[in-house]
Amino acid sequence: MACISARTIPDYVDGYGKVQRFSGVSRESREVVFASVRSISEQTGASKLLSGIGAALDACGVRDGATLSFHHHMRNGDHLLNLVLAEAAKRGLRDLTIAPSSIFPVHAPLVEHMRTGVVTGIYTAYVAGPVAEAISAGLLRNPAVLQSHGGRARAIESGELPIDVAFIAAPTADDYGNLNGVDGPSACGSLGYAQVDVRSARRVVAVTDNLVPYPACPGEITQDFVDFVVAVPEIGDASQIVSGSTRVTEDPVGLQIAQTAAAVIDAAGLLVDGFSFQTGAGGISLAVAKYVGQLMRDKHVQGSFAAGGITGQIVDMLEAGLFRTLFDVQCFDLRAVRSYRDNPTHQGMSASLYANPWNRGAVANRLDTMILGAAEVDLDFNVNVTTRSNGVLMGGSGGHADTACGAKLAIVTTRLKAGKYPKIVDSVTTLTTPGSTIDVVVTEAGVAVNPLREELAARLVAAGVNVVPLTRLHDLSQTDASPRLRADAAVEQAKRIVALQQYRDGTVIDVLRQAGSLN
Amino acid sequence: MACISARTIPDYVDGYGKVQRFSGVSRESREVVFASVRSISEQTGASKLLSGIGAALDACGVRDGATLSFHHHMRNGDHLLNLVLAEAAKRGLRDLTIAPSSIFPVHAPLVEHMRTGVVTGIYTAYVAGPVAEAISAGLLRNPAVLQSHGGRARAIESGELPIDVAFIAAPTADDYGNLNGVDGPSACGSLGYAQVDVRSARRVVAVTDNLVPYPACPGEITQDFVDFVVAVPEIGDASQIVSGSTRVTEDPVGLQIAQTAAAVIDAAGLLVDGFSFQTGAGGISLAVAKYVGQLMRDKHVQGSFAAGGITGQIVDMLEAGLFRTLFDVQCFDLRAVRSYRDNPTHQGMSASLYANPWNRGAVANRLDTMILGAAEVDLDFNVNVTTRSNGVLMGGSGGHADTACGAKLAIVTTRLKAGKYPKIVDSVTTLTTPGSTIDVVVTEAGVAVNPLREELAARLVAAGVNVVPLTRLHDLSQTDASPRLRADAAVEQAKRIVALQQYRDGTVIDVLRQAGSLN
Repeated sequence: MACISARTIPDYVDGYGKVQRFSGVSRESREVVFASVRSISEQTGASKLLSGIGAALDACGVRDGATLSFHHHMRNGDHLLNLVLAEAAKRGLRDLTIAPSSIFPVHAPLVEHMRTGVVTGIYTAYVAGPVAEAISAGLLRNPAVLQSHGGRARAIESGELPIDVAFIAAPTADDYGNLNGVDGPSACGSLGYAQVDVRSARRVVAVTDNLVPYPACPGEITQDFVDFVVAVPEIGDASQIVSGSTRVTEDPVGLQIAQTAAAVIDAAGLLVDGFSFQTGAGGISLAVAKYVGQLMRDKHVQGSFAAGGITGQIVDMLEAGLFRTLFDVQCFDLRAVRSYRDNPTHQGMSASLYANPWNRGAVANRLDTMILGAAEVDLDFNVNVTTRSNGVLMGGSGGHADTACGAKLAIVTTRLKAGKYPKIVDSVTTLTTPGSTIDVVVTEAGVAVNPLREELAARLVAAGVNVVPLTRLHDLSQTDASPRLRADAAVEQAKRIVALQQYRDGTVIDVLRQAGSLN
Repeated sequence: MACISARTIPDYVDGYGKVQRFSGVSRESREVVFASVRSISEQTGASKLLSGIGAALDACGVRDGATLSFHHHMRNGDHLLNLVLAEAAKRGLRDLTIAPSSIFPVHAPLVEHMRTGVVTGIYTAYVAGPVAEAISAGLLRNPAVLQSHGGRARAIESGELPIDVAFIAAPTADDYGNLNGVDGPSACGSLGYAQVDVRSARRVVAVTDNLVPYPACPGEITQDFVDFVVAVPEIGDASQIVSGSTRVTEDPVGLQIAQTAAAVIDAAGLLVDGFSFQTGAGGISLAVAKYVGQLMRDKHVQGSFAAGGITGQIVDMLEAGLFRTLFDVQCFDLRAVRSYRDNPTHQGMSASLYANPWNRGAVANRLDTMILGAAEVDLDFNVNVTTRSNGVLMGGSGGHADTACGAKLAIVTTRLKAGKYPKIVDSVTTLTTPGSTIDVVVTEAGVAVNPLREELAARLVAAGVNVVPLTRLHDLSQTDASPRLRADAAVEQAKRIVALQQYRDGTVIDVLRQAGSLN
């Protein structure tokens, strides 16, 4: 079991400190602290408008070693992270820690800032593209800290991850800091991730490409949380922020998996009035939503809510009366943006309301079912969405671990293989989401039910679902597959730790060691 | 100057502690702290629904000496404060401090709780009726602390006034704590004052008479801030919560004063695009709004916003396009409630966003003009809205001191006399709002301009406004008036301090000594 040894987590990691190891999922209540925030009150009548991002860095007193946060509603169209770090580099700042809620290929210039020591620490819930590869290659001085969306909210609100300056990409803002995501050329919809940052950061800078007369309305984030406002030509590339439409998979295997997943939800007895649902924006997930919608129509079921990142397809379900309301942390397409702007039952939610395990109850805890993806699933139902099978970083939890824990029925949908590589493995290369929070794995060859959910397995069998042992799916997955090349465990252990995967409660559930190389 | 001596403020007051005296209005920025909040995270899947208010007191672990907060959106129709204190008394709790944002005649049962020692401390921004008289008569063990609305938000957020349990009167709520004020039989509209309490209290209890399926939508206050939910038959008397309509004064003197006030705003050069405005719901204030609206129409001016407690009349101005948006901390009538529910440009605001002097900029700071009332104005432009001239408590600042400080042009409108009693006096009986923040006093006999605002006086004179010295208004006010019966200063000083009037920054601007008696 090479991977278990790869998951041997040390007590102490250079550049991270003392490690608190993951020791199982707690659903108990506990005393928690929303940390104090030290800020500067407004001087009555003072202007908050600054000439540029450099001026904002100065006004906020950013020094070497500061922590800057960002949010990812602009996704792969985001300009702000690059703009801020370019100014920081120009000022000779070093040793910055950044805490973007996610990092995309567009953030490739960050690689150079890692190389030069402008940025030496990264906290994020998701990272794809050149920055991920650079982290795996060991270019970042301190290990990157990979969180879940809810874990990030928890860390920031609890003071575990103090933010010196939060930069907010504001599609619309006024000169006093009222801002929203629904208007302007870079409209992205809900600003759910940023909601957490503005309440906990010592300083908050709104950067906008649509400066409007006071007061910007709606005020998704209001002036009492914003220190400075900067106008720039473009905060993002609109074509990359939201797609015009999201599309259901057309692949027959994907459709079969999706249909099975919908049948599982039905067989589990969840498709009754009040049903609640979350899924991602991937092709199979969208297909699941389609089939679930059909079943809801057939059964005349009205759901209570759908949550998460919201697509036009979910908006259609809202408008068709299949759900009474939406909780939206992030809009995935233009239809969702418009609906969020115009429909009061399409509500925004902060990342904390979405998934923080340490508040008085996240929306994730009220989910009936969640449709999850997987890069790998292992025989303990553990899921990896953090690395490729070669150990190279390529994603992260996002809301995966949060919703798996919160939902009554957490369903992983996956093909048995990705190309020639098996997806059902002995042990996941990197542990993102613990198997104890995964209820069902749905593949084209049948459905495996977590042994912890015996009563569920019985229900599914009774409903005619093809329930098979996970070992059977594993065998099928491995048949004719290219063998995974595993390095010698001892050699692996000797490699430097380049990232830590935190569970949502802040404990370390896995470590990533140096892998791959920079081109 | 008997009143100056009455305003001699000791260094220490029993039951309050060390006194920090008001020493002038600061508009400078300062380092401020949003205090940490210690709460209990939700146990996943646990129910928040409790059987009654007594169960909520138990679940929150309320003990002798605890501080309970309330909000006053139900105004004189509120049932919740009485319900909670009755349960507290039944449990034998003693020495509670309560922090309602305002107290009304309906809260008369509180007098008995003061007598029996169930309640020994009160923090509030406004108190009228039997409770006010009981405080003045000395029935409360500790001196009451009178704050402004913004000062209350500041005190709670900064941790100066820690709240053990916030009780939220929720016109609509679900079993998990999402709640709003716009639906249900007790709909009151914006829950602006409660917004502050839920973010800073250790425990939050929502009490509703309209329990709806999850999730209540809109979620003005969301589940992540609510520990427990209790359903009761009635949280309030709908007929007393909001009036069917608010009415412009019909009194010719009042109308004349209002017309002059509107002319002053115009002459000050403020009636240009972007104009912002706040007024109360009194007859003269409503008349000012009417005349201002006419001037805006005539001049084709579009204002940026109106703020504060919102009336149907202000809603009319919004719908007529005279303002682009509203900031609403509290709805004064049914028309405002409906507009707040249905019109996205009619925005809610928290009490902190409204008026907290220690955040990053309150809406009050962006006001062009504010129309204020007065029980008394003195020769230094100081205003009393806290006591009658006999020193008996009958109100408090509410937003008076906040908006006077924030607005560019703070206008007091007042008749010269109330019945036979002069309203322009040598020195106010109780100092609520410092004269340095009052720009103009408008009466039926002319307009006095604060000597600090020479340029304004010149503008008004040039525009033909009848500008007169305040001493002249004082003389007219005193003519044929019943003399104010002033007790001997030494006798006054010997009386017990029954309340402290705080300025919005938390310094003590005046003290109230025992006065009047209980019937």
